[in-house]
Amino acid sequence: MASIKPSVPKGTRDFSPTEMVKRNYIFDTIKSVFRKYGYQQIETPTMENSSTLTGKYGDEGDKLIFKILNSGDFLAKVNPEKLTTHNSQLITSDISEKALRYDLTVPFARYVVQHQNEITFPFKRFQVQPVWRADRPQRGRYREFYQCDADVVGSDSLLNEAEFIMIYDEALGKLGLKDFSIKINNRKILSGIAQIIDKADNIIDLTVAIDKLDKIGLDGVIKELLERGFTQADIEKIKPVILLEGSNTEKLQSLREALADSETGLKGCDEIETVFNYIKSCPLQTAKLELDITLARGLNYYTGAIFEVKTNEVNMGSIGGGGRYDDLTGMFGLKGLTGVGISFGADRIYDVMEELNLFPAAANQSTQVLICNFDAAGEQYGLPLLQQLRRQNINAELYPAGAKIKKQMEYANNKNIPYTVVIGSDEMQSGLLSFKNMTTGNQEKLTAEEIVEKLVDNRATI
Amino acid sequence: MASIKPSVPKGTRDFSPTEMVKRNYIFDTIKSVFRKYGYQQIETPTMENSSTLTGKYGDEGDKLIFKILNSGDFLAKVNPEKLTTHNSQLITSDISEKALRYDLTVPFARYVVQHQNEITFPFKRFQVQPVWRADRPQRGRYREFYQCDADVVGSDSLLNEAEFIMIYDEALGKLGLKDFSIKINNRKILSGIAQIIDKADNIIDLTVAIDKLDKIGLDGVIKELLERGFTQADIEKIKPVILLEGSNTEKLQSLREALADSETGLKGCDEIETVFNYIKSCPLQTAKLELDITLARGLNYYTGAIFEVKTNEVNMGSIGGGGRYDDLTGMFGLKGLTGVGISFGADRIYDVMEELNLFPAAANQSTQVLICNFDAAGEQYGLPLLQQLRRQNINAELYPAGAKIKKQMEYANNKNIPYTVVIGSDEMQSGLLSFKNMTTGNQEKLTAEEIVEKLVDNRATI
Repeated sequence: MASIKPSVPKGTRDFSPTEMVKRNYIFDTIKSVFRKYGYQQIETPTMENSSTLTGKYGDEGDKLIFKILNSGDFLAKVNPEKLTTHNSQLITSDISEKALRYDLTVPFARYVVQHQNEITFPFKRFQVQPVWRADRPQRGRYREFYQCDADVVGSDSLLNEAEFIMIYDEALGKLGLKDFSIKINNRKILSGIAQIIDKADNIIDLTVAIDKLDKIGLDGVIKELLERGFTQADIEKIKPVILLEGSNTEKLQSLREALADSETGLKGCDEIETVFNYIKSCPLQTAKLELDITLARGLNYYTGAIFEVKTNEVNMGSIGGGGRYDDLTGMFGLKGLTGVGISFGADRIYDVMEELNLFPAAANQSTQVLICNFDAAGEQYGLPLLQQLRRQNINAELYPAGAKIKKQMEYANNKNIPYTVVIGSDEMQSGLLSFKNMTTGNQEKLTAEEIVEKLVDNRATI
Repeated sequence: MASIKPSVPKGTRDFSPTEMVKRNYIFDTIKSVFRKYGYQQIETPTMENSSTLTGKYGDEGDKLIFKILNSGDFLAKVNPEKLTTHNSQLITSDISEKALRYDLTVPFARYVVQHQNEITFPFKRFQVQPVWRADRPQRGRYREFYQCDADVVGSDSLLNEAEFIMIYDEALGKLGLKDFSIKINNRKILSGIAQIIDKADNIIDLTVAIDKLDKIGLDGVIKELLERGFTQADIEKIKPVILLEGSNTEKLQSLREALADSETGLKGCDEIETVFNYIKSCPLQTAKLELDITLARGLNYYTGAIFEVKTNEVNMGSIGGGGRYDDLTGMFGLKGLTGVGISFGADRIYDVMEELNLFPAAANQSTQVLICNFDAAGEQYGLPLLQQLRRQNINAELYPAGAKIKKQMEYANNKNIPYTVVIGSDEMQSGLLSFKNMTTGNQEKLTAEEIVEKLVDNRATI
């Protein structure tokens, strides 16, 4: 067979042992916090019926859904005349009935509707699974990537919003981030702003422009608003809202004044204030909580709170986001179920942690000790020690077959194994084994029992 | 929108919170044992290039590979004349360049070859990921299911074989299985049997027949051997081998006598004996280790040891298996890399554990305590307690918004939450909260501090 260098499809990745340890560290930390707040894990199939996914992500999104070719004689069902048109779009649904999960939200909505009679509401679920998008791959954008979502459906209590803020605070704090902001806005405030200038229908244009304040500044936003048909008078009216300053309390106060004529706008202010009051009872440990009315992500489906999380330590896009939606399951015929959810951007969090060197050293160490040996006698001598270590739940390896000691040490180094034990003929005679700390290079002669004791103690202090 | 009841594709499954907790329990246990023995986790992409998978699983296997339809105008590349043949097979490779992982072995081989310069050999890796097969779904057979594999490549030491036996013993023992057998055979012994009757070329026919001994008995096997062209004389010669009895040592002794004329056969006996000697140094805790020369699974690629694991407590197919292969990576151009690996059948292990009621009660409990309340005042009163509990790493929830107490208790019951705290007006006045054990129904009045203490102590004793 010609040996073509094997590769993975464009936009997909292998994860090496070192990367897996770090990724598991992130996912395990986030999952443990989800569980602490009462969220329960579910998993849905990689493949969904095409009818479940199609039409849920807009025309652009639909094009990015990976479709599964029907098994067997997939052309059998296709009308020959249709085939001669050579029109891909026309025959797609004839030759493909299933597709790969595009996000976790639509499968979750499908799950809730399908299992509504088994579910206890409010239903607090989390889900950590890969999704696939036929996007053009580029730096930091993959065709296969993990999403990490938590949602609660069937409860309109704002305690849920507050708890998601606490979850972000706790999870990212546990991961070692020291300076990050959780930005909060409310769709009703944005609606209020549109209402006070009598342009409720133009709310999308308005928010798209305001959303760019960070990037293009006030002048840029004004220019864009004018281009989008807003008048100079409109702009004068909303300028103070856009340029809101001061503490969260001060901002809320100014907003209430500006939105005095909009019932919806004031409702939005009330909601945000309630969330702030919950947080006052349960103060955050690390995160800064910021009211940011330029935040407008996901506006087409969010109906209440909108969240976005950014690190202030590294230049990076948002590392999390979410919001409240009033009709998640309506698309599958179950109306009126409100929900709120958040998402962690695991790939970006990984990059932030790499840049800030936040992964614990232990996250890189799976095996704690390697027992090196020169021959069958050394191997035989080492086996009881190996077993004692494992009985104590110490991850341990015995190098198989007598390779050169240099090779065995290289093996330990490459696997970041922190300790080695060398068993040579002297060691077997005296019962004193060479125990080496691979980080410091320190070496001492110890009995097997002393080595076990040392590694057990060592583990206890990590 | 017409509300068609949403569903998942045939042969795929949703996993509910209860199922996920149990599945995680199985996977986490197995992973922790893999790590203890120095195995490191990798993950490969869900999609592989079709060229990586095609031709690796035989014609029948190839048909069961799920193929991904190319994105965009997939027909553009297809010759119109070819299309008019209406021949699905002919155009498959034109409209599909990627496919879903069919097992973990071929992607692992691809990974090893692709990353050979970054890998430290012997490379001990484990991998737990779903695979997809377009098989006809039936009871216990799914189109999407998890595989759970560990392999070591680049070491011919039989210590690896012995350690896999220890891994099975430890992992399945930890999961609570009390009576199970690890069966071991060696391809070289099967070759030896074929050699002593001068039918080396008919080894497949021979082993297919012998493999059925359990099911069809000796008479059945003899009938089948005769049908497959073996002579009465052949059968007389191999009968004692098939009917091997006694302890492993006795069986080995008989085999050595029967295979005295086959160098390969004796080599197989030596290998098995070496593995048994390793196990004598590190005795198994639970498993029975049985030499079983009727074991012939995966014969087309195994070259040395062959494993199979069966529970003796429940009637169920094999719950694990594996073996040594001499040329895993040859298909991708890297010759001469030997390896040995095993697999756990997670779905079957799940069913065994369900039947034997082996899942720990705690595996069903994510949230430890629910704080129930009647109104905003109760909610406000409960928040500091909620926070204290979480600070102590107790999974805790406060029921959002004042629902009826019956509904809150139902919520606790349905989620298997073992404790509840009720905060009513009396409780707020006295500072003594109603703390209820949901299993026993016992109720007592405790301060918030006492509740925290009790739950922390309780966790420590689990």
